[in-house]
Amino acid sequence: MASNVSESPVPTISSDDPGVTELFALLAYGEISAFYRLSADAAKAPDLRGKVALASMAAAEMGHYERLQEALERRGVDIYQAMEPYVQALEDYHASTTPSTWLESLVKAYIGDGLAADFYREIAGTLSGEVAEIVREVLSETAHSTFVVDEVSKAVAASPQTKARLTLWGRRLLGEAITQAQYVAARREELADLVLAAVGDINHLVELFDRMQEQHEVRMEALGLV
Amino acid sequence: MASNVSESPVPTISSDDPGVTELFALLAYGEISAFYRLSADAAKAPDLRGKVALASMAAAEMGHYERLQEALERRGVDIYQAMEPYVQALEDYHASTTPSTWLESLVKAYIGDGLAADFYREIAGTLSGEVAEIVREVLSETAHSTFVVDEVSKAVAASPQTKARLTLWGRRLLGEAITQAQYVAARREELADLVLAAVGDINHLVELFDRMQEQHEVRMEALGLV
Repeated sequence: MASNVSESPVPTISSDDPGVTELFALLAYGEISAFYRLSADAAKAPDLRGKVALASMAAAEMGHYERLQEALERRGVDIYQAMEPYVQALEDYHASTTPSTWLESLVKAYIGDGLAADFYREIAGTLSGEVAEIVREVLSETAHSTFVVDEVSKAVAASPQTKARLTLWGRRLLGEAITQAQYVAARREELADLVLAAVGDINHLVELFDRMQEQHEVRMEALGLV
Repeated sequence: MASNVSESPVPTISSDDPGVTELFALLAYGEISAFYRLSADAAKAPDLRGKVALASMAAAEMGHYERLQEALERRGVDIYQAMEPYVQALEDYHASTTPSTWLESLVKAYIGDGLAADFYREIAGTLSGEVAEIVREVLSETAHSTFVVDEVSKAVAASPQTKARLTLWGRRLLGEAITQAQYVAARREELADLVLAAVGDINHLVELFDRMQEQHEVRMEALGLV
């Protein structure tokens, strides 16, 4: 049976593939930048409950970061050096998608994290045991997304204008994420090789992006956005 | 034998004392405000290592917050409502001690957390089993303070000016903490009663402040400040 990522994939990438270090480093800086984005966005929280919700989400990202730090240390890698090449792309993503309202912050936390999780989960299927486990662990959804879905769908149901604005915002997040992913792929060869090896070939990569788009739509609907 | 907090104290305050809810609520908002202070201060970090260290410290505060939230829920208390009376005092403390440099941020994280921990630990000795355990747990020192001690003592050893400035800063932190503690004590009767019951009487309260001052000096010395 051919290895096909859209069916049930079999591990094809060994844990000492150099791309694994790159993947962990990218994930690690992703957690750090998400931490700072969430804690800065919380300043716009309308009440204590929202402030606490975003702080808890941010803290969960650091828990994941520490898991990756541990994994990189076991590989003998200096995490700070390893993260360096990914700083710019992630900062650019956040700079180009700075929320201007509290609701935009919530949509970004939910949609952005979801997109990243979809992508890494697709890759995880072809990674060997322990590596796949770490990737899945650091992407585990937190209970806090319920808070986001409740807040956003309530606001959207109450105002067609809010709905229209947030729908555009959700699309823009997808676009900016793709832009930065392409930037990273073009500059980090070992990571790009790992992704290609994970999906099989270019055709399967296109299918992967289609599936991500579908998952994105499912999340937009969960928020009451179309 | 008389109950004396400076010897080995025996639990004198039952877990259903209304002051316990107040104490948990104060501790809980303390964690939230520390989270936001640390994550905002991290913007001044000179490198990725510093940025990560402060984010980890902030995340640890949220872990403690969640422990307190759980404890308050078990007591049938709405944590958001319970924290409300403490928001102003803690925000005022942070507003009056906003660090203007990275080193001031580090000193504040270390000295401020230490002062709070000393105070709560003194009280914990007279609280009944489970309550005392929660208080001690959320005050447990994190491994991150080693980072602070290293960074600050290195900078202080290299520059007498830095040393002089940070010594004044450390004193100011103590002064502002006392100011806000007095403000809280004057306004929250049940909490003030709990503290007095915990220490025994006014004379013992004075002794407690003397011990806190001594502990403060020990921490200042650990940072290379006199």
